[in-house]
Amino acid sequence: MELLQETLSKIQEPNRNVEELAQRRLDNLTKPLGSLGVLEEIASRLAGIQGQALPKLPKEKAIIVLAGDHGVTNEGVSAFPQEVTPQMVLNFLRGGAGINVLARQAGAKVVVADIGVAGEPLEYEGLISCRVKSGTDNFVLGPAMSQEEAVKAIETGIALVQQQIHDSVALVGTGEMGIGNTTPSAAILAVFSGLNPIDVTGRGTGIDDTRMQHKAQVIAKAIEVNRPNPKDGLDVLAKMGGLEIAGLTGVILGCAARGIPVVIDGFISCAAALVANSIAPLSREYMFASHLSGEQGHRLMLELLGLKPMLHLDMRLGEGTGASLAFHLVESAVLIINEMATFDEAGVSQG
Amino acid sequence: MELLQETLSKIQEPNRNVEELAQRRLDNLTKPLGSLGVLEEIASRLAGIQGQALPKLPKEKAIIVLAGDHGVTNEGVSAFPQEVTPQMVLNFLRGGAGINVLARQAGAKVVVADIGVAGEPLEYEGLISCRVKSGTDNFVLGPAMSQEEAVKAIETGIALVQQQIHDSVALVGTGEMGIGNTTPSAAILAVFSGLNPIDVTGRGTGIDDTRMQHKAQVIAKAIEVNRPNPKDGLDVLAKMGGLEIAGLTGVILGCAARGIPVVIDGFISCAAALVANSIAPLSREYMFASHLSGEQGHRLMLELLGLKPMLHLDMRLGEGTGASLAFHLVESAVLIINEMATFDEAGVSQG
Repeated sequence: MELLQETLSKIQEPNRNVEELAQRRLDNLTKPLGSLGVLEEIASRLAGIQGQALPKLPKEKAIIVLAGDHGVTNEGVSAFPQEVTPQMVLNFLRGGAGINVLARQAGAKVVVADIGVAGEPLEYEGLISCRVKSGTDNFVLGPAMSQEEAVKAIETGIALVQQQIHDSVALVGTGEMGIGNTTPSAAILAVFSGLNPIDVTGRGTGIDDTRMQHKAQVIAKAIEVNRPNPKDGLDVLAKMGGLEIAGLTGVILGCAARGIPVVIDGFISCAAALVANSIAPLSREYMFASHLSGEQGHRLMLELLGLKPMLHLDMRLGEGTGASLAFHLVESAVLIINEMATFDEAGVSQG
Repeated sequence: MELLQETLSKIQEPNRNVEELAQRRLDNLTKPLGSLGVLEEIASRLAGIQGQALPKLPKEKAIIVLAGDHGVTNEGVSAFPQEVTPQMVLNFLRGGAGINVLARQAGAKVVVADIGVAGEPLEYEGLISCRVKSGTDNFVLGPAMSQEEAVKAIETGIALVQQQIHDSVALVGTGEMGIGNTTPSAAILAVFSGLNPIDVTGRGTGIDDTRMQHKAQVIAKAIEVNRPNPKDGLDVLAKMGGLEIAGLTGVILGCAARGIPVVIDGFISCAAALVANSIAPLSREYMFASHLSGEQGHRLMLELLGLKPMLHLDMRLGEGTGASLAFHLVESAVLIINEMATFDEAGVSQG
């Protein structure tokens, strides 16, 4: 609990004066006022986060992909079998998954960690082994994990991201892999929003209507059995969550504590962001939403977080793929504020 | 008229068989079916366009920025004075504008041409001088240009893009600069959609409510005076258009005729796309929509074209800035289909 408490105590508000200075510079660049929209917001937010009106490009970038399994898959909520989680971990390590391709393009490394895969320990070269538990328990029968396990998984995420920041990473994207993990994510959303599970449950990897209704019923039952307290993020996380979701909560909190922007991927990453926001509302200031997922409920998550997604690509793969695509746009914002000419410099008349 | 006719005769449907082959490969990659959404659509469309199931990355990329002025600025429809058009042309050539920054990031060159700036000829190093007319006529008093001038401007755009394709450019983005050019663009949209100008007119570079209502009235009057035929794209273009809009129509048609994908920027570029689509509906198959602009009416344009914008950044700068950002995503799609492992290759179980 110590690392978590220490991390929470370090999360500060970004520098609003520097944000304003950055916006003033943006207003003087050769373009109509505000016409670069969200890119301007990103640039001034990064300025406030970095504490300098001309934010710098990140030296290193990383997508942190956490893998975990879910006891609730016993209820038949996913289109894929659980064995796919370790198979995909191997795929990440060999460079053949979607996130590998997109991270390479963005010049980011892919950090892969087993924080909660089920079954025998995985011994793969390049894999960070930091398993807190071999998959969560089936949350229809009781909490997915204990509070202690949830804290340990959060702290594992914090430690992981601290190591990356130590290694010069200055832009982080969240990623995950875990068969069944849209179920706990939808459950977390249902608890925080107070909505009926049927209204926030989606198709995940591609289930049909019947299975989706079943999935929503499973979530409703889990909420009834566990009675998570929507005002207590840690309680919601332990009872409804996943180990990779808890780890990503830690990654987000760890970034916020160190003043590093963190690009949130899709539905599962947003569930982690909701927990982080509940535990430490200021952490939201360090979050950047990448894309609007095709998964039902994601739009609502982003609304609850007050974040605007940059990309509308109807993607629903996870792994950090949306975050990786958004890295280009975060860098675009940095380049814009640093490299565009002002009206004075260019001798262009103002309106 | 000869180059235009020849160009139109060369526009063919993309290869649907190859598109299907590409989709079959995408379906075998290690991800849930369809979970890369629009990236998959882009990949299979590029396959059909290039006639190979594994589309290639473009060797060279270019944003073609056409500059033109508008007689209708006499009616006080813009927040900026007309002198800004040549000033911004100089800014483009010196590398200080938004499009320069974003094109550099995307590894694309910026091709700048004076197709219809008002006043004395511009003699700047690096500028392509292909002026068809020194700004359009005020379309409240009569057609913006003659049919002959419109055809000449289209053919100028075709010739420009042919030269680029000859120089190994295989991915083109549309860009423009022209004080007042949201007015002809909204007029073109009003004619093609049949809607009342007030419903398709936006703030352009940032005018207030009063000026926006005036702008819509100016457009209504221009339509009444000119009576463009919505079934005749060339008539709409000549009466309502701009020289840069006509030139971009040519750029789009030229790409379609040569089987080169063309990324459409924002509101003004979409007006050109509407004209191209009217003259040659098959040209739409070569268009990729980059972003949803903050300019009112843009969403409707995209709906009329049946195109989905990838980026929602509330931008309204033009110049090709949205297209340039989307270049990253087009390349992402190419990398995905080429580099991701299949289920078999990776030893991952299918759902």
